[in-house]
Amino acid sequence: MNDIAYLNGEFIKRDQAKVSIEDRGFQFGDSIYEVIKLYDGQLFALERHLHRMLKGINRIDINFNYNLEELKKICKQVIKKNQDYPKSKSGSLYIQITRGAAPRSHEFTSDLEPTIIMYLLPTKKYSQALRKEGAAAITMPDRRWELCSVKSTNLLPNILSKQEAKEKGVIEALFVADNKKITEGSSSNVFIVNEGVVKTHPATDDILNGITRSIILDLDYHDFVVREEKFSLNDLYDADEVFITSTTKEVLGIVEIDDKKINNGRVGPITQKIHQKFKNYLNEYLD
Amino acid sequence: MNDIAYLNGEFIKRDQAKVSIEDRGFQFGDSIYEVIKLYDGQLFALERHLHRMLKGINRIDINFNYNLEELKKICKQVIKKNQDYPKSKSGSLYIQITRGAAPRSHEFTSDLEPTIIMYLLPTKKYSQALRKEGAAAITMPDRRWELCSVKSTNLLPNILSKQEAKEKGVIEALFVADNKKITEGSSSNVFIVNEGVVKTHPATDDILNGITRSIILDLDYHDFVVREEKFSLNDLYDADEVFITSTTKEVLGIVEIDDKKINNGRVGPITQKIHQKFKNYLNEYLD
Repeated sequence: MNDIAYLNGEFIKRDQAKVSIEDRGFQFGDSIYEVIKLYDGQLFALERHLHRMLKGINRIDINFNYNLEELKKICKQVIKKNQDYPKSKSGSLYIQITRGAAPRSHEFTSDLEPTIIMYLLPTKKYSQALRKEGAAAITMPDRRWELCSVKSTNLLPNILSKQEAKEKGVIEALFVADNKKITEGSSSNVFIVNEGVVKTHPATDDILNGITRSIILDLDYHDFVVREEKFSLNDLYDADEVFITSTTKEVLGIVEIDDKKINNGRVGPITQKIHQKFKNYLNEYLD
Repeated sequence: MNDIAYLNGEFIKRDQAKVSIEDRGFQFGDSIYEVIKLYDGQLFALERHLHRMLKGINRIDINFNYNLEELKKICKQVIKKNQDYPKSKSGSLYIQITRGAAPRSHEFTSDLEPTIIMYLLPTKKYSQALRKEGAAAITMPDRRWELCSVKSTNLLPNILSKQEAKEKGVIEALFVADNKKITEGSSSNVFIVNEGVVKTHPATDDILNGITRSIILDLDYHDFVVREEKFSLNDLYDADEVFITSTTKEVLGIVEIDDKKINNGRVGPITQKIHQKFKNYLNEYLD
């Protein structure tokens, strides 16, 4: 259990890594985070993750002076410090940057010292059977705030929705905003396939622009198009295929939503092709 | 600086009170809080605060076994431990209950040990001049999530709004929801007076039902009525009087909003009467 965490310049045992009760991350959720997947000990899409993190830090105006290169160096040190643990090979790197500790007050000053935390999360396994057979999901009202594009630790609506999914025995809760459009899942983005067109909600403030999502949009496809376009709950139910994406799930077929079968309950061919394309990209990245 | 905090059954120096980086309060904002004002060393409206807190804990399904009496006992112990400090006389008691620490995962299990924190915040002074002359505010879009009735530590929209108010040199940001109705302030409730009728947004999920707010609604008035009723941004601008309420502010007149004067820039008579009524209630409570 004594794996090593990074906390404000020091490497300490994870179970001894603690923050002040006056840390604004703790009292206000005043912080930004990232989860970066490891493949064979390599951090996948590290720069994309750090770039998004720095953007979020900037958006909520945290006084943070580390640049991309300095952050990359710390990330790699954390992996190295934990090289005896399997999770440094196939787990994930968790990063959380808070505005820092200060006497409790909603407003803040610009001179706070941010709290920087990094440590490794264990490997999350999605079985081959699940990948082949697909998973089930429910839909729920999107009750989140208006800046979902910021990857902050204000995650209460997400965890309550994910918990409801878990209690209903399904893998994810997909959010329906304003009773009409599907935004994303509680910890994933969602795509539908309809007559050869693959759609996912545009990267507005209504969704968190996932790294896996953005890579899938960047790739080239021959026999179908993938584009950003809003779609409704009915579009979701009537889709030829549905899949979700996330850093740990990659691409995962959804074959049942609210007890309705999608594609007769089978993972569709375009879902599989996109996952394969993604894995090819991944392998090239790691080479 | 060595005042005493309560942390999971122990009394320790506040600046040494720390929580795990895996506390769900820290990683997800998965926690509920209260701020209870002290007057001459007595906790005002303690039961109302604790009752609301237990309701919030229940609403987000934290596995918490303390009852009101047990909590009251701990609150009083914290005051006693800090009796040498002025804040134990006129500061506030801060309480935060998180779902507890667990390996990071959106979903949770019901067997977690909640983290319980209590400590004292310093006295917040609102000068007699400010009370007499009133304060200024701005309006901002209400960007919060849909369960504002839960006093959780998902406070990022609140702190960003409060910060904007501070940068504009005003005391509070008042939220306008859906471009039409005023809900509340970033850390206060808001009331308007119009032709002898005092209105504040109903206690739906769109607002945090403040204790000061609810006491004001409970009191009896002779020459005007106070009731829950929605009102618009125009109603706010055109109001005869505007005031905000909170645990530390009590009742505070707002005489300028978005650079527009309210009541010719003067605190109105009904605002003063309500504050006086509230202070009478307070004094009776403390007797």
